[in-house]
Amino acid sequence: MLPSLTLSALDGIGLVRPGDDLAALVIAALERSRERPGVRDVVVVAQKIVSKSEGRYVDLAGVVPSPRALDLAHATDKDPRLVELILAESRRVVRHRPGVLIVEHRLGFVMANAGIDRSNVDPGAGAEPVLLLPRDPDGSAARLRERIGAHFGAAPAIIVADSFGRAWRRGTVGVALGAAGLPAVMDLRGRPDLHGRELRVSETGFADEIAAAASLLMGQGDEGRPVVMVRGLDWRDAPAPAASLLRPEAEDLFR
Amino acid sequence: MLPSLTLSALDGIGLVRPGDDLAALVIAALERSRERPGVRDVVVVAQKIVSKSEGRYVDLAGVVPSPRALDLAHATDKDPRLVELILAESRRVVRHRPGVLIVEHRLGFVMANAGIDRSNVDPGAGAEPVLLLPRDPDGSAARLRERIGAHFGAAPAIIVADSFGRAWRRGTVGVALGAAGLPAVMDLRGRPDLHGRELRVSETGFADEIAAAASLLMGQGDEGRPVVMVRGLDWRDAPAPAASLLRPEAEDLFR
Repeated sequence: MLPSLTLSALDGIGLVRPGDDLAALVIAALERSRERPGVRDVVVVAQKIVSKSEGRYVDLAGVVPSPRALDLAHATDKDPRLVELILAESRRVVRHRPGVLIVEHRLGFVMANAGIDRSNVDPGAGAEPVLLLPRDPDGSAARLRERIGAHFGAAPAIIVADSFGRAWRRGTVGVALGAAGLPAVMDLRGRPDLHGRELRVSETGFADEIAAAASLLMGQGDEGRPVVMVRGLDWRDAPAPAASLLRPEAEDLFR
Repeated sequence: MLPSLTLSALDGIGLVRPGDDLAALVIAALERSRERPGVRDVVVVAQKIVSKSEGRYVDLAGVVPSPRALDLAHATDKDPRLVELILAESRRVVRHRPGVLIVEHRLGFVMANAGIDRSNVDPGAGAEPVLLLPRDPDGSAARLRERIGAHFGAAPAIIVADSFGRAWRRGTVGVALGAAGLPAVMDLRGRPDLHGRELRVSETGFADEIAAAASLLMGQGDEGRPVVMVRGLDWRDAPAPAASLLRPEAEDLFR
């Protein structure tokens, strides 16, 4: 049989609210799909519903911007209260210009606006609710995996996915913020090519490629199809979390 | 029916050599798969076999490095002849350090080594053959699409895919070097979110996400599974080539 991959959006997750048991929602959706997950299946979950279930809302109405946030808001044409939150979620500002604020998030991700999101948030979550990234996306993925594995007797890999812009290319692509049960980075060093030479590519961003693939199905209304099951993958490397996708600063030429 | 995507590697492309009729090879593989392509199917073709069919080999044995290439080779621990070719394929050096040479390719891609590849090249193509990127990947995609469409009566979209590293994340991911018949960038501006607010994400790198998904199947022995068919996608935007994925220099904060 030829190698193939299948990606399916799980039905009926619905709107997720703070305190919802996300693992139970995903398990119920898997039960409805009548497909038992296997240990080489990957369940990709949108960051947004992880953040919502973890109650990561902040109400902009209650945020008082610091002088530094006011300055940076002026330079970027952004809401000073939002900039205050972005700074609080970040280790440093990497670049900014009008309309753009790229930071290093406290978890190490170099990304726009520290991933703080005003779209697709529940209007009931505050006067002006915004949503932060999960506190520990690798931990969220590991906990989801444990719960799903305990229920079905086999634990699929889990990816918590977001969309990031890129330095030199237009458009966002899906990336893995969190991962459990698979190697987020696939190490190919030492494997020969078809003619016995060393491979040009030594590492692939395996979890990021899976997140990008799932993003094609999730669409942009994120919550519409926030959970995607991927079947047909395989791997030999030991599992490693999404944190292993972060380029160490010593190797970084662009920070 | 729930939304789903299927990716299938086409069988029997085999090793591709300079002058091979790549469109004929892909058409034959599609015929063998017994699946007629539709106008919303996407055929993803590895850059490497496009370059090979276009005869983009250069023999390092015949390259004489310039003084500038010798300097840069010293600074990057690379073969001076390879550096000479990288410079010839590039508009400028963006960053370098030992082991790393990031350039702006003459086509605008910011990438390592101008995409020049010593792995998986045919040992018969010279004493020390290396392979350059296709001369015009969007043109290559358009020509493949025209030939396949003429044969089957319906033209699938085509992506010519490569793998790029990222500034702040480890591992390469699939990207679109060339595209025809689909919007390489998907414009979401003006579309409302689930609650009527403006979407955070305004553009997605649609063709890049498809290339990343296909890369999961192509694997790293590139030539093993160099053609992947993707079914289940849809789009409303007008087709635009992969060149539209390049961030204009005026917007670039990292060049």
